[in-house]
Amino acid sequence: MSSENYFVFLDLVGTWAFASSGAIAARQRGFDLFGVAAIAYVVACGGGIVRDLCLSAIPPAGLSDWRYLAVALLAAAAVMLAGRLVRRLEHPVLLFDALGLGFFAVSSANKALALGQNAQVAVLLGITAAVGGGVVRDVLLNRVPVILQHEIYASAALLGASIVVIGTRLGVSGPWLSWVAIASAVGLRLLSIHYSWHLYRFSDEEHDR
Amino acid sequence: MSSENYFVFLDLVGTWAFASSGAIAARQRGFDLFGVAAIAYVVACGGGIVRDLCLSAIPPAGLSDWRYLAVALLAAAAVMLAGRLVRRLEHPVLLFDALGLGFFAVSSANKALALGQNAQVAVLLGITAAVGGGVVRDVLLNRVPVILQHEIYASAALLGASIVVIGTRLGVSGPWLSWVAIASAVGLRLLSIHYSWHLYRFSDEEHDR
Amino acid sequence: MSSENYFVFLDLVGTWAFASSGAIAARQRGFDLFGVAAIAYVVACGGGIVRDLCLSAIPPAGLSDWRYLAVALLAAAAVMLAGRLVRRLEHPVLLFDALGLGFFAVSSANKALALGQNAQVAVLLGITAAVGGGVVRDVLLNRVPVILQHEIYASAALLGASIVVIGTRLGVSGPWLSWVAIASAVGLRLLSIHYSWHLYRFSDEEHDR
Repeated sequence: MSSENYFVFLDLVGTWAFASSGAIAARQRGFDLFGVAAIAYVVACGGGIVRDLCLSAIPPAGLSDWRYLAVALLAAAAVMLAGRLVRRLEHPVLLFDALGLGFFAVSSANKALALGQNAQVAVLLGITAAVGGGVVRDVLLNRVPVILQHEIYASAALLGASIVVIGTRLGVSGPWLSWVAIASAVGLRLLSIHYSWHLYRFSDEEHDR
Repeated sequence: MSSENYFVFLDLVGTWAFASSGAIAARQRGFDLFGVAAIAYVVACGGGIVRDLCLSAIPPAGLSDWRYLAVALLAAAAVMLAGRLVRRLEHPVLLFDALGLGFFAVSSANKALALGQNAQVAVLLGITAAVGGGVVRDVLLNRVPVILQHEIYASAALLGASIVVIGTRLGVSGPWLSWVAIASAVGLRLLSIHYSWHLYRFSDEEHDR
Repeated sequence: MSSENYFVFLDLVGTWAFASSGAIAARQRGFDLFGVAAIAYVVACGGGIVRDLCLSAIPPAGLSDWRYLAVALLAAAAVMLAGRLVRRLEHPVLLFDALGLGFFAVSSANKALALGQNAQVAVLLGITAAVGGGVVRDVLLNRVPVILQHEIYASAALLGASIVVIGTRLGVSGPWLSWVAIASAVGLRLLSIHYSWHLYRFSDEEHDR
């Protein structure tokens, strides 16, 4: 597999994971068939489209490449058919969200570097694409935004994207670098959910109006 | 009228409809004069600007073409002057939203095809531009998002954009194709509101946190 | 200082102000260290990134220029260290928001003109960049959107951007034009908060569903 195809593959796995998370959340909200499919697609491709706009990769792959649409729709169909299976999972939305977070952070950092952007752009776009899907899902579905919850979230995307950028700078390359980065990001996120890890937190809850 | 001017004309009708829907919703929220005008403009042009960014049509027409701004401001002024008339309508926000949905779905699919994009991009950007205005309106005004309501919504935009793309592929062309597509989208949306139509719906209301 | 550097300087002051406002709001919400930094960066650079996409200034400066990231992170660090000082202010989020509003309206109108856009684009992008940070902050943090509050808000950005555009058209130039524009926008906003100024307001509070 050429390295470009390889990054598209990582992108598609992330697309599948975010689409699943969006479809599950939409089902929980009582959406209809087309609504579930539409939310799945938007959650899956929203972050990547913003990334591609910032990279001037136009038209964005999420719009023009049929594989993204197909993966998102298949993921939505799987969620609709396998409702019982999904309900057995404890926090299915957060689980698939964590997978999408890791894959998109890594594929996006790689894509930015491959298009000649500097390390800062690669890390920031990695985080943007990784976090974007979840933000879109929660705003559209009126959920408490996942970034407002107390466990480590964007930090996990930062970790994944940074491993890619630092590794590439050190001349390390090949698929295994991506897999280490993905495993670190997803692992950190899932562990932080399980153990309610968080960084030092402020507690001066007061409000300007 | 050249075909390019023709699509701009459809875009402007959609701009007028979305601006009216935004202005009515802003009035209902007790906004001031400038607030009503600002919301009207953002709702009217938000979806089209995102579409133009994805098509690399820069600067976006909604920003640089004075007709869009003028139409949006005139629509807002009309809503402010004709408050009594508007209040006689049953669901004025949803009515104008349905018109905007249909016109933008069709003008955007046409614009994407005219700029050489493939059928998938045309359909997806048609839906994006058609749905974008309503999402922006509801997020900014803290309303229950229209896409969360149970009638057919994005499906109507899909129908309108698909008729344009399929018709164009079959070599059908001319203004009447656009009008059939617009009438189908607007009609489906309004009928689904009136009769509370919806597709098959899931009812496993549960929540991950 | 070249005029380009001068506009970047205004942009960076706006970045510092919006980052502070975002960091304070995130602290009030009980975010952790990284969360405060992330929100500060997104609020500070969100509006400017949208502006740069519309101007085809790619990659957006907020992503690729290290000074924006550095200023945002320093502002977040200052807020974290100087919590006591910040709490003495009456409406710290709104105060810093007003500063960001004025600086971004002016730097963005200047940037659009410098890139050869027409007066309308300059004014509209000035407002977009000025208002964007606050909208992003309030949507992400689930706050009542500042644009929904009753004082003069977007109008202040309109004032600042218009002074830049009209002054430039009249052949007036030099740094002091920018400072007059900034002072007008920030002053109008702060006075309207203090005296609860607003334009004529509608009060037909009713709701389509």
